[in-house]
Amino acid sequence: MPKINPGRLLSDLRRFAQFGAYRTGVHRPTYSKEDMDSRRWLAQQYEAVGLQAHIDGVGNVFGMPHSERRSLLIGSHAESQNHAGWLDGALGVIYGLEIARAFAETPDCFGLPIAPVAWADEESHYIPLLGSRSFVGDIEEAEIDRAVNVDHGLPLRDALREAGLASVPRSLVEPGRHVGYLEAHIEQGDALEASRKRIGVVTSIVGIWQYSIVFYGIQNHAGTTRMAIRKDAGVAAATLTMAIAERFPEVAGPRSVWTTGRITLEPGARNIIPGKAEMLFQFRDSEMPVLERLDAVLGELVEETAIKTGCRADIERTGTGKPWHMDPAFQAAIETAAALHAPGAYVRMPSGASHDAQVVGRKLRSAMLFVPSIGGISHHWTENTNDADLVLGCQVLADAAETILRGEST
Amino acid sequence: MPKINPGRLLSDLRRFAQFGAYRTGVHRPTYSKEDMDSRRWLAQQYEAVGLQAHIDGVGNVFGMPHSERRSLLIGSHAESQNHAGWLDGALGVIYGLEIARAFAETPDCFGLPIAPVAWADEESHYIPLLGSRSFVGDIEEAEIDRAVNVDHGLPLRDALREAGLASVPRSLVEPGRHVGYLEAHIEQGDALEASRKRIGVVTSIVGIWQYSIVFYGIQNHAGTTRMAIRKDAGVAAATLTMAIAERFPEVAGPRSVWTTGRITLEPGARNIIPGKAEMLFQFRDSEMPVLERLDAVLGELVEETAIKTGCRADIERTGTGKPWHMDPAFQAAIETAAALHAPGAYVRMPSGASHDAQVVGRKLRSAMLFVPSIGGISHHWTENTNDADLVLGCQVLADAAETILRGEST
Repeated sequence: MPKINPGRLLSDLRRFAQFGAYRTGVHRPTYSKEDMDSRRWLAQQYEAVGLQAHIDGVGNVFGMPHSERRSLLIGSHAESQNHAGWLDGALGVIYGLEIARAFAETPDCFGLPIAPVAWADEESHYIPLLGSRSFVGDIEEAEIDRAVNVDHGLPLRDALREAGLASVPRSLVEPGRHVGYLEAHIEQGDALEASRKRIGVVTSIVGIWQYSIVFYGIQNHAGTTRMAIRKDAGVAAATLTMAIAERFPEVAGPRSVWTTGRITLEPGARNIIPGKAEMLFQFRDSEMPVLERLDAVLGELVEETAIKTGCRADIERTGTGKPWHMDPAFQAAIETAAALHAPGAYVRMPSGASHDAQVVGRKLRSAMLFVPSIGGISHHWTENTNDADLVLGCQVLADAAETILRGEST
Repeated sequence: MPKINPGRLLSDLRRFAQFGAYRTGVHRPTYSKEDMDSRRWLAQQYEAVGLQAHIDGVGNVFGMPHSERRSLLIGSHAESQNHAGWLDGALGVIYGLEIARAFAETPDCFGLPIAPVAWADEESHYIPLLGSRSFVGDIEEAEIDRAVNVDHGLPLRDALREAGLASVPRSLVEPGRHVGYLEAHIEQGDALEASRKRIGVVTSIVGIWQYSIVFYGIQNHAGTTRMAIRKDAGVAAATLTMAIAERFPEVAGPRSVWTTGRITLEPGARNIIPGKAEMLFQFRDSEMPVLERLDAVLGELVEETAIKTGCRADIERTGTGKPWHMDPAFQAAIETAAALHAPGAYVRMPSGASHDAQVVGRKLRSAMLFVPSIGGISHHWTENTNDADLVLGCQVLADAAETILRGEST
């Protein structure tokens, strides 16, 4: 049985957090100097375990075993959100490294090839899930040509050139080469903590359906236009927000979530009745019928709001991600390992966030493990997890990896 | 009786609209080249009527009669909103010029001194009602030092230097020198048109109470944070907007208006639950007790919303303008003239918009006349008024001016 080294694991996690250290978290945007330094450091560590390391044309870092046998990819993404936490992504990346080491040090695991991986730009600085999508062949060159940084607007092509990746080929999945993919991640919610569990066995990753909803009213003077004749697009947006808050709970699933992340009123002046209101809205669920039901109800509510407020409404679906179910046998392997190391302290649960596993899962059998987030906090520099949980998660994933690779070899 | 010249009036209005012509409207921001050209043109016209013209240190243009008797100021503001209408401000300015000419041409009006005036920056490119506030002594040098342009952020001091006004003194009201102030303006609403009236006799100018209302929720991941534990600041803003829409009609006056002009959610990302929501809110009424009642109810609703949504709320009053009642004798003079020239087609009404008359009114007896806005449209380049109404309004104001000045002389 592979035995991970808790001290080395924690020390590497802390070392990795020095790349772009920010308060108690990190600021390591994709292709920044800190991000590329962290990727080169990873490649060195992979080499030191006896793996063949390379950074591909979008910055994915692979550590490939010198083995004829099919290997198990283990990793996550290396970059961070802006001024965010030290574990989001990094946890799964360093688990991959530590498990590769543990296997290399365990004589009877010698022939079981672990391939650690660090994906690029899961966090959408340029293109959401860019690295894993590139790996499964889901990114055209034209999409890379068009992409710009969401914060400073500079082209992705320039960033890749700056990072020294302009003429490096992108690595594509070869299904015959890999058994599958395992990813560990912090939960980023409070479900584990609230139920006093320490390991989440991810059953599925939610589908995210995104919308841009625009109401067109009549822009006019806020002093001289009588209330009776107003068509206020901002009031329409508020009306819809409240209608959603009232109706969605009646038709949603038990874990459905929905969010209006942005409301923009135009022209946005104190003394002008808004003529236009745009809402960025999304909902998530792990079941397709629930997503379709929410979509239908949203359409009805937008129409009702338009009639009620006298505003014209446009609704555009900007994303309809399918939920993705994790591989049942991989889930079972994680669950068995969790039952051994944390009896009674694990639970099956869907993931409310996107992860590279949902992309890789399209081509390779995949599964995920969650460790708790203290206070449910993530995407913030105060994000954290207890050391004991960090260690436990890695050991459980290592055991699961062994089970999967042994199953493969028989 | 002074007889205005309709052809000359319309021709001057159209000439004035060439300064910064934009589609069928104008773009003539305060202290822009077009604005300063228009002010210099006005000064020339004032001189041509035999008045002593000068442009003061904030750009106000005065045409002062060579007379020992107290004169009647007549005017409005010369600049426009950005890419807006040709009559907003310009109407009252050109009325002042035409009435000065009509009096100069009418032998028995000879001794009745008309002082046309064009105020600067009523439209808030730098400081709302800057010109008239400067005239009544309500602007300190420090406020001018601090002010910047709302669009491009350049300092007011630089704009004044550029306009050649840096070392020109600001003219201050000398109450013994003026009988009072008359201002004509387009209505900027549809009340006249809807009731088929052609002249509005303004009874009062509303007080505008402005608020910045901020809700603080908990910013978190839009996928992993369960609905049950969310504190969504955006939902709080929508809740308040709807609560206002429901409760305000019960306590408002018949002409009260209220508007949420802007809602800003932070961080404003699709996939993050807003941790902060800021609303710019205002209401207007011409009666102080109504304003105070709305203020009290708003405070209650903000508190109720905070309790209901679990968000903390801050409410700040950023403006509490007093409503201003027009001089009764001046109103009567306008009404009598309207009854003569437009029998049955005039009405007393409050002004829902701010005007220089509410500022000048603090020091001099003041009154206002409205002409209809086609479709109630203003602050837009399609703003317009029928020629017949443009002419009528000027004749009514001229008659009212005569009545006021004759009353003064007896």
